[in-house]
Order: sequence, then C-alpha cells, then structure tokens
Amino acid sequence: METPLDQLIKRLSRLPGLGPRSARRAALHLLKHKQEMMIPLAQEMADVAHSVKDCVECGNLDLTDKCHICLDHKRDETRLCVIEDVADLWAMERAGVFSGRYHVLGGTLSALEGRGPSDLGIDRLLSRIQTTKVEEVILATSATVDGQTTAHYIAERLAEHQVAITRLAHGLPVGGELNFLDEGTLAQAMRARSKL
Amino acid sequence: METPLDQLIKRLSRLPGLGPRSARRAALHLLKHKQEMMIPLAQEMADVAHSVKDCVECGNLDLTDKCHICLDHKRDETRLCVIEDVADLWAMERAGVFSGRYHVLGGTLSALEGRGPSDLGIDRLLSRIQTTKVEEVILATSATVDGQTTAHYIAERLAEHQVAITRLAHGLPVGGELNFLDEGTLAQAMRARSKL
Repeated sequence: METPLDQLIKRLSRLPGLGPRSARRAALHLLKHKQEMMIPLAQEMADVAHSVKDCVECGNLDLTDKCHICLDHKRDETRLCVIEDVADLWAMERAGVFSGRYHVLGGTLSALEGRGPSDLGIDRLLSRIQTTKVEEVILATSATVDGQTTAHYIAERLAEHQVAITRLAHGLPVGGELNFLDEGTLAQAMRARSKL
Repeated sequence: METPLDQLIKRLSRLPGLGPRSARRAALHLLKHKQEMMIPLAQEMADVAHSVKDCVECGNLDLTDKCHICLDHKRDETRLCVIEDVADLWAMERAGVFSGRYHVLGGTLSALEGRGPSDLGIDRLLSRIQTTKVEEVILATSATVDGQTTAHYIAERLAEHQVAITRLAHGLPVGGELNFLDEGTLAQAMRARSKL
C-alpha cells in the first residue's frame, strides 16, 4: 500500500536534479523541519501555482499579465533578445548585460520531438516586431544543433523585415582552458579571433 | 522586491541536494507542469506535514501513533536494531534483511554539535528494553567516529541488562575494489577475515 509519504517521495523524485535517493533525503529533511520548511513550502508552491502566469507579451513568468520587464519603460524597446526558455531570461538578467526586452520561445524547433514553428509562437514574434519599435533582434538560442537551426529559421523569417539580426558571439568561455574545450568551440574561437 | 517565486526558489534551494541553480530548474519545471506536478505536490506536502508523525515506540515516521512495523505482530520482537536515522530504517527495509523491530536514535552523540544521551532518548531505549522481550540489540550506527562512540556508549549502558549486544560487520562493501578502499576498512576486513 502506498502511503502519502511514498507518494510525496515519488513526486519529488520526478523533479529535475532529484532522483529516488535525494527525493527521500529531501522528504526526510522536510519532515524534520515541518514548521519552517514543509508547511511554508507547500503554501508557497500553491500560491505560486495560482499567481504566476506567462507574460502575454514575451512569455516570461510573472505575477502580472505583462511581466515587469515588458512594463518597465526604462528598458530599451528597440532591442529584442530571443531566447529559448525562461531560465535563459533569468540567466541574462543575473548577468545584467542586456537592458532591452525579451522574447521567450519556449523551446527550439525539433524534428525529433515534433516541435514546429507554430509551437514556438514564431508568428507571435513576427507580429510583435511589426507592431513595436524593434530595431535589432538578438538571436540568443543555445549553441546546439536545434538552437542554431531555430536561430537560422527565425533569421530567414525576419529577412523581409526592417530589423538588424544578430547572434551572441561564440568562443572560449571565461576561465575555459584550451585543452578541455571541444574542437567546435576552438574552431569558432579561432575563426572569430580579434586584434589585441 | 522579492516575489513569491523568488521566495519559493530560495526555500527549495535549502533542501538537501539542491542548490540555487537546481532550485531554479525545479521551480521552472514545476511552473511548466502546474496541474500534474506543482499543485499536487503542494497538496501532498501539506497533507504529509499534517498526517505523518513520529512513532511513539521506535521513532519511525508513519500515519499512526505506533508505526506499521511496531504494530506488525509477525515481526520478531526479540531483536531490536538501533539506528541513527529514519533514512537508515528505510535503507534496512529496502534491503529486506531484518525482520525485527527498530529504535531510531535521531542522530549520534556529538560533543561538537552538543548532542548528549538525553537528546537521543537513550533512556527511552533502556526502558523499552526492560519492558519488552528484547533478547538481542543490534547497534547499527554508522561506521563514523560519532556513530561508533554512540554504539560504545549504548553498549556500556546496556551492559547490566540481560541482552546480547551485537554490531554490524565491517569490511569490503559488495562490489568494492581493494585499491579504492581506505586503510581503516581494509584493516577491519583483514582482522575479521573468515575461512572459505
């Protein structure tokens, strides 16, 4: 017979980064700290599930219909950074290197997983570009095959629009050691070398 | 300003095995699977927090005042296995190698962390031995300094009682390779060698 505790552990183990063993450890930790962890965590989870929604404009997650980035008039609305996932948006915001707006695709094109242009809302991206003052679209998808395919597809679709299309630089990661780098990255870094 | 989502991520990152990065990943996963993950997980967590309690007899976690192991009359009540933590009890039950009863200490004696005999309820263990039919106490604490100190302390306290005191064997773990083993384990395995 499956107890509620077994069910909880099973569901915890389905979170990314947790397996059966760490799910058991997490469940025990929660049970040992009911008042300061388990009960508030359950409450916060329920609250967030009911209050957080997708931004109607960019796909970011926030409490409002339009997210705080889309509502922020101090951000540069002429630059639009196209990313795969909300996690990428968070990473960009933590780095603090971009002051424009975002567009979250929610994935990449993928023949294998059967995701086409309509699943990514690329039409929504196009109409957004037509109706706002975007001058530059930065394609910041991952440097994977699917990510780059998606970038190329979007670049093609945008070709007829009056916007500059750019992509992130590829090369050595900061702190990266040459002998641990794959050949693809090395080749990119060599090709895009710049004067000192 | 900290949003409910930030709070949720912060609390998730305090779970053992999760850091800030994996907490963000888990939170995003939850948000992407609200109906089948986030809402039921919040519910289950609240349910378990309110329904699961410590067994009054052995310290195991269960839905009833006495846990299903203590209530199970088919289990051998003459053998009592003393363990540090509920996680250890789960490990023993998964292995299915013990059919007696358990006693969960809830930790080890630790001068460093200021845990003495009263914190571990060792008096409760002694009175349990006096009032039940225990014939053998198996000290199954960890093979760490604190674990072994605790085992020796309990063995001393039990000396005057009419019970056999045993401990788990130490030696090579199954699948363990000699050249990866520490010297302590090797020494134990050599000392406790047996005839083939």
